[in-house]
Amino acid sequence: MDEESETTATAAASWAKRAWELLSMVRRRAPLVQCITNLVSMDLAANVLLAAGASPAMVHAIQEIDDFTPNVDSLCVNVGTLAESWIPSMRAAAAAAERARRPWVLDPVAVSASEWRMGTCLGLVELRPTVIRGNASEILALSSACRIRDAKGADSAHESTDAVEAAKSLAQSSGAIVAVSGAVDFVTDGQKVVGASNGVPMMQRITATGCAVTALIAAFVAVDPSNALEATSCALSIFGLAGELGMETAKGPASLRMHMIDALHCLDENTILSRIRISQRS
Amino acid sequence: MDEESETTATAAASWAKRAWELLSMVRRRAPLVQCITNLVSMDLAANVLLAAGASPAMVHAIQEIDDFTPNVDSLCVNVGTLAESWIPSMRAAAAAAERARRPWVLDPVAVSASEWRMGTCLGLVELRPTVIRGNASEILALSSACRIRDAKGADSAHESTDAVEAAKSLAQSSGAIVAVSGAVDFVTDGQKVVGASNGVPMMQRITATGCAVTALIAAFVAVDPSNALEATSCALSIFGLAGELGMETAKGPASLRMHMIDALHCLDENTILSRIRISQRS
Amino acid sequence: MDEESETTATAAASWAKRAWELLSMVRRRAPLVQCITNLVSMDLAANVLLAAGASPAMVHAIQEIDDFTPNVDSLCVNVGTLAESWIPSMRAAAAAAERARRPWVLDPVAVSASEWRMGTCLGLVELRPTVIRGNASEILALSSACRIRDAKGADSAHESTDAVEAAKSLAQSSGAIVAVSGAVDFVTDGQKVVGASNGVPMMQRITATGCAVTALIAAFVAVDPSNALEATSCALSIFGLAGELGMETAKGPASLRMHMIDALHCLDENTILSRIRISQRS
Repeated sequence: MDEESETTATAAASWAKRAWELLSMVRRRAPLVQCITNLVSMDLAANVLLAAGASPAMVHAIQEIDDFTPNVDSLCVNVGTLAESWIPSMRAAAAAAERARRPWVLDPVAVSASEWRMGTCLGLVELRPTVIRGNASEILALSSACRIRDAKGADSAHESTDAVEAAKSLAQSSGAIVAVSGAVDFVTDGQKVVGASNGVPMMQRITATGCAVTALIAAFVAVDPSNALEATSCALSIFGLAGELGMETAKGPASLRMHMIDALHCLDENTILSRIRISQRS
Repeated sequence: MDEESETTATAAASWAKRAWELLSMVRRRAPLVQCITNLVSMDLAANVLLAAGASPAMVHAIQEIDDFTPNVDSLCVNVGTLAESWIPSMRAAAAAAERARRPWVLDPVAVSASEWRMGTCLGLVELRPTVIRGNASEILALSSACRIRDAKGADSAHESTDAVEAAKSLAQSSGAIVAVSGAVDFVTDGQKVVGASNGVPMMQRITATGCAVTALIAAFVAVDPSNALEATSCALSIFGLAGELGMETAKGPASLRMHMIDALHCLDENTILSRIRISQRS
Repeated sequence: MDEESETTATAAASWAKRAWELLSMVRRRAPLVQCITNLVSMDLAANVLLAAGASPAMVHAIQEIDDFTPNVDSLCVNVGTLAESWIPSMRAAAAAAERARRPWVLDPVAVSASEWRMGTCLGLVELRPTVIRGNASEILALSSACRIRDAKGADSAHESTDAVEAAKSLAQSSGAIVAVSGAVDFVTDGQKVVGASNGVPMMQRITATGCAVTALIAAFVAVDPSNALEATSCALSIFGLAGELGMETAKGPASLRMHMIDALHCLDENTILSRIRISQRS
């Protein structure tokens, strides 16, 4: 083994070790993750959080933000199935999280669906999310703050590699860690770029997997808020690994969904150390 | 084989071939299907659309209709868990679909639950849906536009055969293709009646299977809008066939749900050609 | 066998027999259970009701209460994902159920999340629910009508045994049967306390299992409204038994969810008679 590949191997092992540490912390501390999320993803997001050891709380009434949000460990805001009546809660919860120095994560689902949704997301970005996670189309659109013509609903029409520069730019302008999901997931703070390569294509045939991994990111940044780039990368890779393990017995997208959640619940140190694939790209 | 049964066999083979062609088109084109659907069915409808190869978009805010609906390939409107705030979106989306010459499908879930729900559905029928799908109780009620006393929630108290004449009458008055789900599903344009016989009784023990098949119909009419009667019949039979295949390994309604979605994802030409059971009844 | 243990064995057999009778009645009569429930639990609650043989109806629009609620067999009100616009419907439905002499069940999910939620729940308790079911934290909080500092979202921070005295007090003040879910579920009318010991810990790693069993209680009290303490105890134990059976083949929380629903659908007399564990504690 030459020097460079030895360094690479050491770095990869270090990432895998970090992923296991963070998952162990989630299991031990059971962070309370408030989700103001879309109607399609609530069930999956809650079950993924529970399988990871976190404690989900789907609380979105404006009347509860002041009492509830200061006590959560992190917040996840997701604009899929956006309705006007939810926007004040999203904004109030983001502000309350900021005041309480709790990390919060934004998922700009289908941001190009309408001018109104784009405007809502831009307004949320101004409230300084700790992490923004989307697919390539969403990050490209949000980064350029203009609509992409061929964007189709919540499914991505772009590869994640296309969006890396846009993600860096968005990270720089927003101050957030930005994650782009795809065949490889990229995570950046505007300078460094980390790639997380776990996962299987069939996960895209299950609704709300993107929303669920955003919720998982919120659980991971809850236990290590000062290292959000690392926590985000590890959450993405661990979710992808759960998908890989699920795929070993899945016969289609519905059984994959089940096996993936089971695998997330059962993940052990050896599996993580041998199979997590995270590396710094630049 | 005498002449008549030979003709019947040829017709059956022709329907099966059509079903395969339409499913292949859905997989190839991945039509974007906007769903304004009820809160219970969102997860199942989205997963069924994804398993069939379509791209679901649960978008229901009135602020997004003008931007979003003209770009979809079809629209599914479902009144289960109806709330007053959603009605303007349903109406605006139906009108936008009509203007953009996109097909749209109405599911009048539990139309007899209240006078208000009936009134809402009658108002939607006036906006000229391409297809209306319901169970026998729903189609009977909507057709006679009056409440049926023994109707119980969203579950049907009638056999689909009872509702064939009502379906023809509704098709004639509304201009829609009308489908009645049941042990045999009937589909009519007001003159012709087609029967689709795939499916298993346990599918009724899974919530939102009716809503999910309505969403699937929307995907099928999206790829062949000028033959909505055929597309509707094929969608119903393919969904029923997925249920039959799922039933081969299911141990109850929850595993049936999983295996059914997996089967829909995996359906191949041979299985469809040998097992689709559609025939013209009159 | 001495006299006392013989009496105990006879009593246990009598409870198991009662559980089987009630489940059989649910299957035979298919009670229509209206659920005004939270967005996370709708799918699971509906599927659990269907698996038990009941007919779920997720109807929450205020415009439908007068027409619909008098025709239901029971009502389930659940305040998880509470929104202000739903409260009038909850109150109107509870009042309509009371007027029509239909039993109704309250699930005060995460009652300590905010003052506003506590106030809403106290207002609902005044409308005289037949049964109140919560976890230990929720029943303790509702009973003392004050917030518990370490309560975390919808997950319980207390053991069910802690809450037995609080449950008795709440039952006395409200006139409701009060059930506290936990490792052992306790049910009380304010005097008698019944313990139901079926279930497995992993059920808490599935979102909305508490909400689902509350819906199942509504189905059971629908078929025997004059014996709500018995019906509640039997529903809790049967749901727990379904979890035990599901656990025999589950590999994690997602497969447990599936196997549990399948098991509920398939439960037979022998299994219930040999495995239901209910006993009077005082």
